[in-house]
Amino acid sequence: MTFMRSILNPLIRPEDVLPSSSQMEVIGVFNPGVAQYRGETVLLVRVAERPKQLDATQIAVPVFDPVDRNIGVQSFVKADPENDSSDVRVLRTRHRDYLTSISHFRLARVLADGSISVDARPAMMPNTAYETYGIEDPRITEIDGTYYITYSAVSDRGIVTVLARTVDFIEFLRLGIIFHPDNKDVALFPGTIDGRFYALHRPSTSTYGSPEIWLAESPDLLHWGNHQRLMGVRPGQWDSHRIGAGAVPFLTADGWLEIYHGADENNRYCLGAVLLDRDAPWQVIARTTEPLLLPAAPYEAQGFYPNVVFSCGAICVDDQVTVFYGAGDSTVASAQISLVDVLNALDASPAISA
Amino acid sequence: MTFMRSILNPLIRPEDVLPSSSQMEVIGVFNPGVAQYRGETVLLVRVAERPKQLDATQIAVPVFDPVDRNIGVQSFVKADPENDSSDVRVLRTRHRDYLTSISHFRLARVLADGSISVDARPAMMPNTAYETYGIEDPRITEIDGTYYITYSAVSDRGIVTVLARTVDFIEFLRLGIIFHPDNKDVALFPGTIDGRFYALHRPSTSTYGSPEIWLAESPDLLHWGNHQRLMGVRPGQWDSHRIGAGAVPFLTADGWLEIYHGADENNRYCLGAVLLDRDAPWQVIARTTEPLLLPAAPYEAQGFYPNVVFSCGAICVDDQVTVFYGAGDSTVASAQISLVDVLNALDASPAISA
Repeated sequence: MTFMRSILNPLIRPEDVLPSSSQMEVIGVFNPGVAQYRGETVLLVRVAERPKQLDATQIAVPVFDPVDRNIGVQSFVKADPENDSSDVRVLRTRHRDYLTSISHFRLARVLADGSISVDARPAMMPNTAYETYGIEDPRITEIDGTYYITYSAVSDRGIVTVLARTVDFIEFLRLGIIFHPDNKDVALFPGTIDGRFYALHRPSTSTYGSPEIWLAESPDLLHWGNHQRLMGVRPGQWDSHRIGAGAVPFLTADGWLEIYHGADENNRYCLGAVLLDRDAPWQVIARTTEPLLLPAAPYEAQGFYPNVVFSCGAICVDDQVTVFYGAGDSTVASAQISLVDVLNALDASPAISA
Repeated sequence: MTFMRSILNPLIRPEDVLPSSSQMEVIGVFNPGVAQYRGETVLLVRVAERPKQLDATQIAVPVFDPVDRNIGVQSFVKADPENDSSDVRVLRTRHRDYLTSISHFRLARVLADGSISVDARPAMMPNTAYETYGIEDPRITEIDGTYYITYSAVSDRGIVTVLARTVDFIEFLRLGIIFHPDNKDVALFPGTIDGRFYALHRPSTSTYGSPEIWLAESPDLLHWGNHQRLMGVRPGQWDSHRIGAGAVPFLTADGWLEIYHGADENNRYCLGAVLLDRDAPWQVIARTTEPLLLPAAPYEAQGFYPNVVFSCGAICVDDQVTVFYGAGDSTVASAQISLVDVLNALDASPAISA
């Protein structure tokens, strides 16, 4: 059994979200973090915007100023051969590169009928010199009534992971950069194990090695060490090229269950699962051989970045796992699977789990 | 004034060092960490070895096995077009790449006449799955009588920084991986500042940004956080392409003095200096405009990797700074400068110090 998609998918489309200012337009809403807050399921959604393209002869790009904390717009002549926009995500000019879009976070709530209500205003905007290219892919972990958010901060300094916290989803406090460049896909375990906090993280190397899932430990959530590689890519399989944490792990009777993402050489992003030892989360017990969700629906196979299902959060209620995910870097969707089906899909043979 | 080279340079050459086993030969001895131990100046030297090339038709490469902790030798037919040895550092075969050499650490002592005595046996050998390509560039920081060593561990998992400690330079205890891939050039400050430990580190990104010097803080030396970029490369100058910590920083009346390395687009590695605030080491007070040492002597301009001076340690005694450094990735050398000359060479204008 694999995930069953919600019949309401896609749950949020770009046109469902108001831009953060009149000069911007929303081009993607995806990769939401998920939490249970006061009886509601809330999402912290990544919203990607670009300046409205008002002049067909120009390319308008967002320029975040970390001093006045404002997103301005700069325009470049399309016909100028020094302005290279062959990659839709990047504008390369003579002096520097610009990203064509910039992301922030927006709060949304799952309503009783399964549809989503999205706030009109941003919850978190880029705010520092480490966030000039935007903030991306929030994951929410509740620990003792506080909601900790890890997200990727992107700038010309690289991609770092920031830790923030909130108790009310109104005020968000940044606590610092917890992983240096390049690191993303960080998911905190919900509580301590034998007195220590743990995090899944995903360093990218510029030398040897593939982007894979690592584990780190911490006494206080702020300082991290004892890094170790947890699990690797699997050549020839759906997760052959890169893997990273997806949802925040949650505890089952059999151990910690993690819904992770994997991509192959064609950058097709799927979701799978891995089971980690309850007391020793650096030990992989079992891992799915086949994807539990692969991009097949039109909103997954198409989009700004096609063929992607990418999750930052799941909830498990009454042994039903509901995963929320970004589809094609454009929309938010959800899918459901019973916990027993996930556990049955896991393969504990050592060759599978390495 | 710039550094004055020792007339004894190079202090250690490959032929001065016994190989770690009869099947290996030493091809480089460089980048030593430095400490004052029981009235002596001791060096922990990086020794690069390769298997003796006994058959001219073959290439013999070292293969470290992390299970039996042994460096074996594997040979490949040179004439086989599937074996690519066009890069002297790497052998690319059909199945995987091999590094042509592997490094370990050797203890050495500075004698009264300034010459060096090198131990016959290794002090630290590669020992884990994170060290299969070798251990490199140790830096030693004394804190309350314990000597902490940070070094780069290189493997097919990337380049990580390991923390180890010793009290006698006989037994060395690994304490864990403190920085995930890719990170090197880590130098611990000698003691706490307002209750916190600090480290200079050098992440490498696979996306945006250059290899630059960052600062992190820790409550216990094992767990690190609050990462921030300390200082950047300077386009058009000698440190335009990449920079990293060099020697372990030491306290002067004016603040923390750090001898760092910078390389330009031609991979010429030079040494410069930066002064950091005594109480707020994340504040750059001043930085040298010109190199204090640039590769010019024959043993610096030549070697396994030419045009390199690269330091992992310096000592400051009676206001004389002695830097020990690797020259051309082949030999160990030293040079001296008065503290006042370093301080006079620093430029405090904001444009210089960014």
